[in-house]
Amino acid sequence: MTTAYFTASSVDGFIADPEDSLSWLLSRDVDREGPMGYDPFFAGVGALAMGARTYRWLREHEDGWPYDVPCWVFTHRDVDLPPGADVRVTTADVAAVHAEMVEAAGGRDVWLVGGGDLVGQFADRGLLDEVWVQYAPVALGAGAPLLPRRLELRLEEVARNRDFACARYTVAHETVRPG
Amino acid sequence: MTTAYFTASSVDGFIADPEDSLSWLLSRDVDREGPMGYDPFFAGVGALAMGARTYRWLREHEDGWPYDVPCWVFTHRDVDLPPGADVRVTTADVAAVHAEMVEAAGGRDVWLVGGGDLVGQFADRGLLDEVWVQYAPVALGAGAPLLPRRLELRLEEVARNRDFACARYTVAHETVRPG
Repeated sequence: MTTAYFTASSVDGFIADPEDSLSWLLSRDVDREGPMGYDPFFAGVGALAMGARTYRWLREHEDGWPYDVPCWVFTHRDVDLPPGADVRVTTADVAAVHAEMVEAAGGRDVWLVGGGDLVGQFADRGLLDEVWVQYAPVALGAGAPLLPRRLELRLEEVARNRDFACARYTVAHETVRPG
Repeated sequence: MTTAYFTASSVDGFIADPEDSLSWLLSRDVDREGPMGYDPFFAGVGALAMGARTYRWLREHEDGWPYDVPCWVFTHRDVDLPPGADVRVTTADVAAVHAEMVEAAGGRDVWLVGGGDLVGQFADRGLLDEVWVQYAPVALGAGAPLLPRRLELRLEEVARNRDFACARYTVAHETVRPG
């Protein structure tokens, strides 16, 4: 069971541009079933978590709710819930929610969708195991940061998937939690 | 003849940490002669340019001056010149200096060492051809930005070199200069 941050990024480490747009990303070519692609990754996922901005973006841009596994949304605001979907709004501590997610995932992986600061909160508690970055071929110069933390990683895998340079890292837990 | 920005970066797009340290980088394992490594890259370089911070870092950390090709340093400050080295301090426009560099390079490549804003000034003038990034396995969360510009790239090559995920891009010139 792995808790993974799987995300696209600009080459300079931004996951959204200053207008919260993903046009720089969605215009690129990728094989979802290819190396380090979304489909094989998501096939192993049993629960997911995201922050308010990521959730709002999905609700505004996706036709219906795209996930069939439980999703926790960390927000203090009222949110419009998609009918029939298992979306759980929370303001609880990430460690408490993580325990619920692991149980709900039933042996499958936990996906931290973003944003970067929410993922950082999981990392702060030693709950982040892997980081998968798909670098789109663009520099943005500004926007929402990939992972606003100082965090030691270990490179596990590098691949090209069409327009994307992909890298998978494990988090060097020994630097944040002994034993 | 190519004008290339060849640099290491954290996974989240910083080329130096907030203390201007490179300890996060210099502790990693890399094969300088390996895939997308420094030695084959530098073998093709005939001239180089850098900003004041990069120059100061080199002077403080390198034993003597490490380059045997002409180097332009963009700074308005007085700088201590290494004896016997071809270091040319300039406050001129990057396009004028670029023409001098190309001539001095005699058919070899121009290396923009950094920092990111100086490289951005070359990009603004359509003078940046390639970006080579060697991602070290660490998130820094803050520091000196890789390339503070919005710039379209094309992915040419992906490689692993020991601890580093490496990507080479060409700059999509058609988006910045017609014809």
